[in-house]
Amino acid sequence: MKARKNIRTQIKAISAVIFMSSVIPVAIAADWKTLPTKAPAPANNPTTTEKVKLGQILFFDPRLSSTGTVSCNSCHNVMAGGEDNRAGSAGVHGQVGGRSAPTVWNAAFSAVQFWDGRAPSLEEQAKGPVTNPIEMGMKNWDDVVKRLKAIPGYPELFSAAFKDSDPVSRENAAKAIAAYERTLITPNSAYDKYVSGDKSALTEQQVIGMKTFAEVGCANCHSGPAFNANGAFMKFPTHGNSMYEAKYKMSQDEGRYEVTKVDADKHFFKVPTLRNIALTAPYFHNGSVSSLSSAIKVMAKMQLGASLKLQQVKDIEAFLEALTGQFPKQTMPRLPATPGKTFAYVK
Amino acid sequence: MKARKNIRTQIKAISAVIFMSSVIPVAIAADWKTLPTKAPAPANNPTTTEKVKLGQILFFDPRLSSTGTVSCNSCHNVMAGGEDNRAGSAGVHGQVGGRSAPTVWNAAFSAVQFWDGRAPSLEEQAKGPVTNPIEMGMKNWDDVVKRLKAIPGYPELFSAAFKDSDPVSRENAAKAIAAYERTLITPNSAYDKYVSGDKSALTEQQVIGMKTFAEVGCANCHSGPAFNANGAFMKFPTHGNSMYEAKYKMSQDEGRYEVTKVDADKHFFKVPTLRNIALTAPYFHNGSVSSLSSAIKVMAKMQLGASLKLQQVKDIEAFLEALTGQFPKQTMPRLPATPGKTFAYVK
Repeated sequence: MKARKNIRTQIKAISAVIFMSSVIPVAIAADWKTLPTKAPAPANNPTTTEKVKLGQILFFDPRLSSTGTVSCNSCHNVMAGGEDNRAGSAGVHGQVGGRSAPTVWNAAFSAVQFWDGRAPSLEEQAKGPVTNPIEMGMKNWDDVVKRLKAIPGYPELFSAAFKDSDPVSRENAAKAIAAYERTLITPNSAYDKYVSGDKSALTEQQVIGMKTFAEVGCANCHSGPAFNANGAFMKFPTHGNSMYEAKYKMSQDEGRYEVTKVDADKHFFKVPTLRNIALTAPYFHNGSVSSLSSAIKVMAKMQLGASLKLQQVKDIEAFLEALTGQFPKQTMPRLPATPGKTFAYVK
Repeated sequence: MKARKNIRTQIKAISAVIFMSSVIPVAIAADWKTLPTKAPAPANNPTTTEKVKLGQILFFDPRLSSTGTVSCNSCHNVMAGGEDNRAGSAGVHGQVGGRSAPTVWNAAFSAVQFWDGRAPSLEEQAKGPVTNPIEMGMKNWDDVVKRLKAIPGYPELFSAAFKDSDPVSRENAAKAIAAYERTLITPNSAYDKYVSGDKSALTEQQVIGMKTFAEVGCANCHSGPAFNANGAFMKFPTHGNSMYEAKYKMSQDEGRYEVTKVDADKHFFKVPTLRNIALTAPYFHNGSVSSLSSAIKVMAKMQLGASLKLQQVKDIEAFLEALTGQFPKQTMPRLPATPGKTFAYVK
C-alpha cells in the first residue's frame, strides 16, 4: 500500500512538472500557491488560545528533558529559522543526533513529520523527542506527566485548555504543543506577495530563478504552498553520484525503510519544505551540505540528474531567498515554577 | 585593602542587625527597602532602547557558543527564575560547571558579579562565560567578533546602538548585554507592596517570617533592596558544622580566594540576592541544597550558629516567597540569520 502510494505521488509530481514547465508561462502558473495564514487543525484538536498558550510554555520548558537543559526550542529555535543550524542537534549530555533537525516553522503544512515521516501528525511528532535517549532523554511519559503535575502552574494551564477530568497527560501535552506549532506560520514572503499580484516583490533574478526552479524539475516535489508536496514521500537520492556520495554520504541513511522495513521504502524521505530554506543551513537529512548554493547543485544532480550552470544555481538561490516569510511577533512565555524546590536532574 | 573592606562590610552588617532586631519594630523598620524599578547604568554605558534590543538578541543567541547550542539564556533562563534550577549548569558538549548559576534577574543591583565577585560590573561579567571552555567554549573573543560580523543583521544592530566606527566588538557586545540585563528587574513583590503601605499584601505568617528573618540575623547580610548587601563579600560558612560539611561540602570551594589568592579572602562569596529566591532552587554556590526550607536551616546554622525551630523555618520560607516579584513582559527576539549558510560548529 505504502509503495503504491509513493508511486502515485511520483506520477502526480511528474505530471505536475510537465504541465508547469511546458504549457503555460511559469511565473503566472496557477500552481504557484501562497502560504495560508492559518493551518487547519484536526477535528480532535481544535486550536484554542488556551492550548496555544500552554503549548508555547511546554515548547520552551527544558524540564521536559531529563537534565533540565533541552527544550523543544533548543533544536527547533523559533527565534531563528525553527531549527539549530547544525548538522546534528545536541540533546542531553551533549549527545548529537544522526539527522538534522527539520524546521518547526510551517511544519503544520506537512502531512507527516520527521525526515522518515514516521509521525502522521504534529501531535504524534511532539511525543517522540521527549523520550528519545539522545534528545530529551526522559525515561518515559509517565515520568514527564509526574513532573508536569509537580509544577504547580501546569495543572491549572492544562485544565484551562482541556476539559478532561485528569487533564495533565501525554496526549494533552502533545495536543497543546501541536496547537502552538500550528501558529508557527510565516506568510507574506516576497514570493507570496509576487504570486498575489505585487510584481515588484521579486527581483528580476528571482523571477528568472522561479522559472528555472520549475523548468529543471525542482517543483516536481517541492510543490504546493509550502513547497513540500504537502509532506509526500520521495526517494532520495534517485541518481547515484559517486563523488557526491563519497563526500556527503547521502545513501547511508535508509530513511523511511528504517521505520517500515519495507524494501520499497528504502531511501524514501518526507519532502522537506523550502519555506525559509535560506535560514536553515546546513542542508539535507544529514546536514552534510553547508551552503544553499551547494545544496541546489547537489539536489539537481542527485535527484534530477541535471548539471546546473553556475548562473542557474545563483538564480534559484535568489528565488529561494524570496521564500523567507514574515515571522509573527511572539510574547516570551513565563515558565511555571516549583517554589522552593527543583527536580533531581540526571547529572 | 580587600580584606580591610570585607571587615568594614561585616562590621556595618553587624551594626545593622543590632539596630534592626532590637531598637524598632521590625515590620515597619526603615531598613526594609523596596526594589527600584530602574537600575542605574554606569556613565560609560547609558541604557538605550537600541542597546537593550541588541543585548536581548545577543543574550538569546546560541551562536555565541562554539557548538551553537548554548546561549546566555541557557543557564540564566529569563523565562524562569533567571537560572536553570540545576546544581551545576550544562555548557558545551554537556560539560557541567562547578558552581550553580546565579540568577540574572536583579543582578543589576549587585556591585559585583559571579559567586566570587571577580567581575566588578555586568559588562565585565558578560565577557566571561562566552570563552569559558566548559560554558560557551569559544576560543577567544576575536572569534566571537568574527562570527558576529559574519551574521548580516548584527553590524546594523551594533551600529544603531553604538557610534564607534567599528562597532562590532567585545566591549560593545558586553555593554549591550549589560544594558539588557539592567532591564531585568522584578518589582512589586508582595513584600514591596507591604513595605509601600499595603498591609494586606503579606499573610500573617509572612509578617512573622519577616520579623524572624531580621531577628535571627538573616538581614545582617541579606540587606538592602535586593537583600544582597548590594553585592558585598561575606565569609561562608562562618560556623563549622561537620554534619552539614560532610553532606553539602560547602568549604570545598574557597570562593574569592581562588581569584585573589589573598588568605583573608578564603571562603568569601558575594552575598546573593534573595529576590525570587523561591524560584531558584537548588541553593548555595554549589547547588548542594535542594529545597528552600533546608537552605534556611543550613544557612542559620552555618552562618549564624543558630538552630531554628521548624516553625521559624516555615515562617521565614513564607516570607521569602513574598520576595517573588513581577516579571516584565518581553517580546521574543528574532535572531539575525546567515542566509544560505551556517558556521562550522565544533562537533
